[in-house]
Amino acid sequence: MVPKKLLKLAKSLQHKKYRYQEQLFLVEGAKSIVELLGSSFTVRTLIGTSVFVNQHRSLIEKHISETSVYLTSESEISSASSFKNNNTGIALVEMPRTKTIPVTFDDYVLVLDNIRDPGNLGTIIRIADWYGVAGIVSSPETTDEYSPKVISASMGSFLRVPFFRANLADFLSKTELPVYGTLVGQGTSVHHTNFAECGLIVLGSESEGMRRILAQYITQAVHIPQFGTAESLNVGIAAAVLCDNVRRKLGEKSDAKM
Amino acid sequence: MVPKKLLKLAKSLQHKKYRYQEQLFLVEGAKSIVELLGSSFTVRTLIGTSVFVNQHRSLIEKHISETSVYLTSESEISSASSFKNNNTGIALVEMPRTKTIPVTFDDYVLVLDNIRDPGNLGTIIRIADWYGVAGIVSSPETTDEYSPKVISASMGSFLRVPFFRANLADFLSKTELPVYGTLVGQGTSVHHTNFAECGLIVLGSESEGMRRILAQYITQAVHIPQFGTAESLNVGIAAAVLCDNVRRKLGEKSDAKM
Repeated sequence: MVPKKLLKLAKSLQHKKYRYQEQLFLVEGAKSIVELLGSSFTVRTLIGTSVFVNQHRSLIEKHISETSVYLTSESEISSASSFKNNNTGIALVEMPRTKTIPVTFDDYVLVLDNIRDPGNLGTIIRIADWYGVAGIVSSPETTDEYSPKVISASMGSFLRVPFFRANLADFLSKTELPVYGTLVGQGTSVHHTNFAECGLIVLGSESEGMRRILAQYITQAVHIPQFGTAESLNVGIAAAVLCDNVRRKLGEKSDAKM
Repeated sequence: MVPKKLLKLAKSLQHKKYRYQEQLFLVEGAKSIVELLGSSFTVRTLIGTSVFVNQHRSLIEKHISETSVYLTSESEISSASSFKNNNTGIALVEMPRTKTIPVTFDDYVLVLDNIRDPGNLGTIIRIADWYGVAGIVSSPETTDEYSPKVISASMGSFLRVPFFRANLADFLSKTELPVYGTLVGQGTSVHHTNFAECGLIVLGSESEGMRRILAQYITQAVHIPQFGTAESLNVGIAAAVLCDNVRRKLGEKSDAKM
């Protein structure tokens, strides 16, 4: 039996206010929970079906004390979860301590200015993981990185991509790294940009793009060349195309050196 | 006053069954409707706020007879719409006649194998539009291109990208164009692929990738190089990275010719 109080707590963590009050967030669904159990995150409580818990017993035992594992039915999990189609498990996970942003980075970092859509943020975290960027620095107003939709869309990548929050004007004004940003109709095509070994890539919000106050810190404006008639690209798509071109260019440079 | 019957019809079009029965689909929200009114699609009925209708009166008058325009309140639109945050207008649009797939294409075409998520399909249509591909050919099982979520995520691009459905094994077996497909761990990196002037790019479903039966028709396997640890990329992201690399390569070739 899962105590009612615990189910209520799990449900409350769908709301940002309670996540920060409790310093806990949700990881839901078999695939994400299995990845979580292989990570250094601290799992406070696991609610799962007996099938799921038995299937991953040794991994679970390594990671979490038996008294914090609760067995229940698929339907109870489904009704307590943020996602209707999750009927395997819910983990209540401790938020890691806020990390201080390193003074500098020796690779690429994505800088997110007021990304509002949790699906977009999760996708960007997944892209950052795929392209092996050193981390993400986001404005305070960017949607909460611990929201269930972000965690779900990141497909486990939230476990691996360092995520920081900062006043971006402050952060960008102090960096010595090149700052790349997409400014409409400006700068070089990403196909022809000579990307440096490390740098910051600034991505603006879905509806308004990059705030003016940040544009002054862009040391190299770039654009994604358009070949058709769509007005814009989704910010997640833009992030991927930028990262792909950075990695391609750095690959060409390292090939040339050999 | 909007007749109750009309509101009921509009709501019913959120379901695929009624869309095909009525041969109508929904375009919702100011931005998409304005783009729609500039297109060759036939708008059967427009339900809008007086503010919206007055603001776009001349465009509306050019496109649709006065008797088919209904004025109502923001709240009525919001409650009849697929999207809570749409409080400007809903258009009921005639499905265009099914087009026969051209025998061949003189540019790139995206081939979609069982894409299930409407958001992904809409995003792919938007990407196809941005990169100016000649069209999309999808399997019969791919999610309905007229679903409100697809139309919304395409951000108006559904108006410009030719969309066909076909038995893909049949379609691919007959083409003389090169067929590119991402097969895990196989083929050349998209950074180093010498893409031909025209071709087909096959994209597999979110959960299962490309079906085996189609893999035999791939004439050139390609992969998106991975630099970090994420297991995979979202199919929309993969579509964008592939299109971007195709256009970059063709640009290089045409530069070399000059």
